[in-house]
Amino acid sequence: MNNFNYYAPTKVVFGKDTEKETGRLVKEQGASSVLVHFGGKSAIASGLIDRVCQSLKEEGIAYETLGGVVPNPRLSKVREGIALCREKKIDFVLAVGGGSVIDSAKAIGYGVANEGDVWDFYAKKRVPTACLPIGAVLTIAAAGSEMSNSSVITNEDGGLKRGCNTDLCRCRFAVMNPELTYTLPDYQTQCGCTDIMMHTMERYFNMSENMELTDGISEALIKTVMKHSKILKEHPDCYESRAEVMWASSLSHNDLTGCGTDGGDWACHQLEHEIGGMFDVAHGAGLAAVWGSWARYVYKARPERFAKFARNIFNIQETDDEKAAVAGIEAMEDYYRSVGMPTNLCELGIDATEEQIKEMADKCSFYGKRTVGVMKKIGAPEAAEIYRMSNDKSIPLYSR
Amino acid sequence: MNNFNYYAPTKVVFGKDTEKETGRLVKEQGASSVLVHFGGKSAIASGLIDRVCQSLKEEGIAYETLGGVVPNPRLSKVREGIALCREKKIDFVLAVGGGSVIDSAKAIGYGVANEGDVWDFYAKKRVPTACLPIGAVLTIAAAGSEMSNSSVITNEDGGLKRGCNTDLCRCRFAVMNPELTYTLPDYQTQCGCTDIMMHTMERYFNMSENMELTDGISEALIKTVMKHSKILKEHPDCYESRAEVMWASSLSHNDLTGCGTDGGDWACHQLEHEIGGMFDVAHGAGLAAVWGSWARYVYKARPERFAKFARNIFNIQETDDEKAAVAGIEAMEDYYRSVGMPTNLCELGIDATEEQIKEMADKCSFYGKRTVGVMKKIGAPEAAEIYRMSNDKSIPLYSR
Repeated sequence: MNNFNYYAPTKVVFGKDTEKETGRLVKEQGASSVLVHFGGKSAIASGLIDRVCQSLKEEGIAYETLGGVVPNPRLSKVREGIALCREKKIDFVLAVGGGSVIDSAKAIGYGVANEGDVWDFYAKKRVPTACLPIGAVLTIAAAGSEMSNSSVITNEDGGLKRGCNTDLCRCRFAVMNPELTYTLPDYQTQCGCTDIMMHTMERYFNMSENMELTDGISEALIKTVMKHSKILKEHPDCYESRAEVMWASSLSHNDLTGCGTDGGDWACHQLEHEIGGMFDVAHGAGLAAVWGSWARYVYKARPERFAKFARNIFNIQETDDEKAAVAGIEAMEDYYRSVGMPTNLCELGIDATEEQIKEMADKCSFYGKRTVGVMKKIGAPEAAEIYRMSNDKSIPLYSR
Repeated sequence: MNNFNYYAPTKVVFGKDTEKETGRLVKEQGASSVLVHFGGKSAIASGLIDRVCQSLKEEGIAYETLGGVVPNPRLSKVREGIALCREKKIDFVLAVGGGSVIDSAKAIGYGVANEGDVWDFYAKKRVPTACLPIGAVLTIAAAGSEMSNSSVITNEDGGLKRGCNTDLCRCRFAVMNPELTYTLPDYQTQCGCTDIMMHTMERYFNMSENMELTDGISEALIKTVMKHSKILKEHPDCYESRAEVMWASSLSHNDLTGCGTDGGDWACHQLEHEIGGMFDVAHGAGLAAVWGSWARYVYKARPERFAKFARNIFNIQETDDEKAAVAGIEAMEDYYRSVGMPTNLCELGIDATEEQIKEMADKCSFYGKRTVGVMKKIGAPEAAEIYRMSNDKSIPLYSR
């Protein structure tokens, strides 16, 4: 087991009607002027923004609103939020939405609390030293940003999607009412479930000695999400399933499922960032589309790890590790297909040119300056190979 | 699933040599004068107190030391600590030890930060409104106090063992080096493992609708501790096993394994508090000694819950819930015996008189003012019955 730090200070307030507690929670943080940050019009149409603002008013807290955050949240919106916060002397950013809105709120928090260009932190030119306090009212179970130290922003100038991870941006509180996710379209629900599982799977596939408690928690989480994502296809307003998935979203990305490991592989997330940056697809679908090709490309580096996954998640009885590993990859792809997720770029509706593949591979490797992943080190040529596997229409099922 | 709050802000620094980071961690908290609180001479003899104090010195932090905390930590020591902190203007209490030392440190923290008699908080006469910041360097994996909101103190005047739970006392940081637990005697290790499992089992046995992710995490934790407690009987210096158990100790009692439940039963803890108060036995052994009798007394209130425990922890295949429940209770007792833990008061070396039983039952029920437990409400008569079952030498194995 590796040495590790674990720090998940976010106060979780989970359950029905909890959004009404937002004002109290903001006040508890000592804030007096809040930016209510959100995405599309549905948050307004549903009355959620009104309920949240009412809750702020009741505590005598001033607020400004800024909507318009889109999936793969944009740097331009972040800059707009930073300017607004500075103008209105905002001291707390409240994200009402999913991962994109929370990530955008975190970026605004960095931008307001530090001098200079906020993109520097995402381009790894500088490290932020402060962040405005952030809170979240979660409306989509997916990104886990409500408890994570992560924020991912897309710079429209060059289509670069980059992350910045520090404890400074961890939400002070997260309000999680599973009922708020009832109206999500199935595709978005399933993309969320994939993202949730992938946050744990990225950590689970690692090169360190196994950590049994962490593995057990991870396996419980993956199986729970798998089961309830299927229920939600038929019963989108099943409270229990929405709740299981929502709580899993937070636990999957608050570092719990990585304790004692080497941190995990994370190549799929990096590979997907480039797909998302170039084609603006839903993050979860992009992850599902690249996972199988990645898994087949790397599993021989540690077949016993993939075999454990196959046995403990899918109850695959095969005793040979390599065979079990492959059976597990196929079972995972079967699961993806059963919930309408793509298992390759073709199914994602992308037909990338060789030029586009090379461009994504170059960007993923920071033009040759880094590799991603730990099971195999993925540089530009390896990334291109994985993209090609995922993009090749001629490869039959279970062979990709 | 029930609505819930989850708040586990403790910064965990886990692994080899991490005690050397103590000074840095205290400084990060803005403290300038520390009470180093500990138990017996072994902490000095092992050099641990020296290493921790050295680490404080290197950061220029002043400190006082106060040792002598005993298992079932005493109110008199707490009062001594409060007086010392006030005299020396201490602003941070650093517990170097296990649950007893951390609980004592929390009580000192309450006492210094509030006016009046600290025992009031434990006697439920008042609620504390503040607490000095607390940190921990853990030397025994058991109580989970390093991440919990709990502190249990014994008032020598009357032998009352009482708890006070608030978020105020949650440790700011917890340094966890599994190597520090290598030298624990086997009995103490096993008592710790029992306590760890019981913190999850108390939550697992509840009357609320099942929470799948929480159950899955709980089952993973119990199975992990069970496996590694057995390994530690033969290999007390197995780092991996010490580490699994130590991390489980924190996760078992930081509320993670109760999320979405009704909070759990907790009758065994309350029943054991009185055993500990009267006979001064090790807490874990007391829990093991009372669990089987409690389980047999209550399982018919919800056999399906005990059956799930039996099937998922012990892989018991019995399809009838009541039969599976009983088989699970027996399997748990077998496990306890296999690691040298008692399964009744007799095996714990206690031969309680009927008067003592009645006194414990009276105290447990606050002299008729409360019941404990949720699976069955346990007042004084029910508590006496459970104590009697556990105390009766004539009951054969597996019938208690």
